Amino acid sequence: MKKILILGGFGFIGTNVMKFIDEYLMNEYSCIVFDRFPEHVHGIKFNCVEKVYAGDFSDETMLERVFTENKIDLVFHLLGSTVPTTSKNAKFDVMSNLIPTLYLISIMDYYKVKDIVYISSGGAVYGDMKQKHHEEDAVYPKSSYGIVKLSIEKYLLLHAMLYGFHSLILRLSNPYGPYHYNNYQGVINIAIRKALKGEKLQIWGNGKGKKDYIYVRDFCEILFILIKNGVSTNVVNVASGKLLNVNQIAKAVKILIPEFEWEYVNQSIEDVTNFELDIKKLNHLTNSYVFKDFKESLVLTYNWAKRH
Amino acid sequence: MKKILILGGFGFIGTNVMKFIDEYLMNEYSCIVFDRFPEHVHGIKFNCVEKVYAGDFSDETMLERVFTENKIDLVFHLLGSTVPTTSKNAKFDVMSNLIPTLYLISIMDYYKVKDIVYISSGGAVYGDMKQKHHEEDAVYPKSSYGIVKLSIEKYLLLHAMLYGFHSLILRLSNPYGPYHYNNYQGVINIAIRKALKGEKLQIWGNGKGKKDYIYVRDFCEILFILIKNGVSTNVVNVASGKLLNVNQIAKAVKILIPEFEWEYVNQSIEDVTNFELDIKKLNHLTNSYVFKDFKESLVLTYNWAKRH
Repeated sequence: MKKILILGGFGFIGTNVMKFIDEYLMNEYSCIVFDRFPEHVHGIKFNCVEKVYAGDFSDETMLERVFTENKIDLVFHLLGSTVPTTSKNAKFDVMSNLIPTLYLISIMDYYKVKDIVYISSGGAVYGDMKQKHHEEDAVYPKSSYGIVKLSIEKYLLLHAMLYGFHSLILRLSNPYGPYHYNNYQGVINIAIRKALKGEKLQIWGNGKGKKDYIYVRDFCEILFILIKNGVSTNVVNVASGKLLNVNQIAKAVKILIPEFEWEYVNQSIEDVTNFELDIKKLNHLTNSYVFKDFKESLVLTYNWAKRH
Repeated sequence: MKKILILGGFGFIGTNVMKFIDEYLMNEYSCIVFDRFPEHVHGIKFNCVEKVYAGDFSDETMLERVFTENKIDLVFHLLGSTVPTTSKNAKFDVMSNLIPTLYLISIMDYYKVKDIVYISSGGAVYGDMKQKHHEEDAVYPKSSYGIVKLSIEKYLLLHAMLYGFHSLILRLSNPYGPYHYNNYQGVINIAIRKALKGEKLQIWGNGKGKKDYIYVRDFCEILFILIKNGVSTNVVNVASGKLLNVNQIAKAVKILIPEFEWEYVNQSIEDVTNFELDIKKLNHLTNSYVFKDFKESLVLTYNWAKRH
C-alpha cells in the first residue's frame, strides 16, 4: 500500500482521482488529503481517504505535520490547478502558490519523499505564440498564474537534477466531467449545467476558436498508467489530441438537452485562435492510450450533472 | 535629458554603465542610483549621478520614494545580476529578487514609467541542455537564481503584452573589465588580480570548457546602441560570440604578467562543456556591432587592475 498526499484533494481533479482510486485501486493506494476544507463541500465521500488536514497551503506548521504524522510515498500537487487565469495580483500568486511549494519541496527533501506529480496547465504555461505546443517549446505565459506554474515546474525539475526528485509534470488541457462545480471555467460542464437549469449559455466572440478538452476520467487513467509505467522526471502534455470549438460543444449538448439555447456576446470579436497540445510524448509513454469517445464522455458527464 | 533609475548602480555593471555615461553621454542622461550602499564602496565617483537612494530592494517605501521624488524615464534593473549562482535558499531568492521586482513593476505602472532594461544571465537561464543557445529556445535553469531571473523576464514580458511596458531583456554572457571587485566569479578579473598579487590561480577541472566572455565596455556600448535604435520589448543574447576556455585565459594573462602561475584542482573532472550564446539577433539589432579585440580588452582590464 502506498500513501499519496493529495494537495487540493477536494478540488475537481482531486475528487476524480480519489473516486478513481476508490473504484479501481483501493488495494494499492490510500490518501492523505490536504485541503482548505475539512471535508468535500458537496458532501462527496471517499473510501481511500485516511486522513484530512484542513488548512491554508501557506500554513507551514500544518504542512509539516502531514509529513511528521504520516509516511508519505508520493505527492500529487493539484493546488491552484483549477483557478481561473485572471489573477492580476502577481505578488499574491507568488506568495500563495510558489512560496508554499518551495516549502513543500524542502519538507519533502527533509523527509526523503522524492516522488511528486504536479498538475500544470497547457493553456496557462505555453501562451499562444504558435498553434501546436510541444513540451520542448519556449513558453510565453499570458498571466501571472501561468508564470507561477512555470516557476514551480522549473523548481521541481531543478530538484530532480540536483537532489534526485522524481518530478512528473503534467501540462493538462481543459478537463471536464463529473464532480465539476466551478461556475467560472470549464465550458463543457457549464453548458450542461445551464442547459439543465433552462438557462442560456453566453458565448464570448464567435465561438470558433478550437481548444483541446480532456475527459477527467481519461486523465485519471493516464495518471496511473504513467505512474505504473515508472515515468519519472518529465514534462508531459496531457490532452485528448482532438480540438473542439464552443459551437460544436453547444450543438453536442443540444442533442442531449434539446431545449438548450445559447447567445453570442461581442460576436464582433472573431475568435479563431486554436490551441493544441502535441501529444506524441504522451502517446509514447502510455503506449497510445485510447481516449473515450467525446459523445460518450459527454453523456456520462450529463448523467452525473442530472443527479447533482 | 533623460533620467535613468539604476537599480544596483554601484555594482560591477552599474559602475561601468555610469562611467560610460560620464564619458560619452553626459548631455543625454542623468542617473538616480538605488543601491544597498550610499556611495560606491571603492570610492568611485560619478558625474552623471544626481541622487542616491541607499536601501534594501525589499524596502517598498524607499523604492516608492524614488518615483515620487523623481521623474524617471527609464529603469535599468541590474540587481542580482552579479551574484554567484550558488544560492540554495530558493525562498530567499524569490523574496529578495522576484517579489521586490513585482513591486517595482507595479510602481512603474502607477507612475507611467514603461521603459525598463533588465540584465538577465545567459548562463543562469538557459542551463546546458545544448551548446548554442538561441533566445527562442526552451530553457532549463540549473539554479534557483536562474529560475528567479527567468520568472522576472516572464513578468516583464507579460507587462509588455498586457500593459504596454517596453521590456528589454538582455541575457548577458560573462562580463569582465574595469571596476570588477568580486572574488567569487569572473575568472578573467580574478586571474589578473591573482597574477598581480603573485598568487596562484586554481582552475577547477581541466580548464577546457569554453564559455563566452564579454568586455564590459562592449556591453555598455551595445546597451546604448540598442536604446538609440529604439529596440523595445525583446529578449536578446548579449555576448561576444567568441568562446574561450580557462587555459586560454590563463595563457593570455601570463603574456602580460610572466610570473603568473596556475594549478589544476580535481583535474580528473573532464570539463569539456562549451557554453555559447547565439548572437544573430544581437548582430541584427546593432547592425553587427564590432567587438573590441580580446587581447586589447585584456590589456585595458590589466591596466585598470594595476592601479587598484
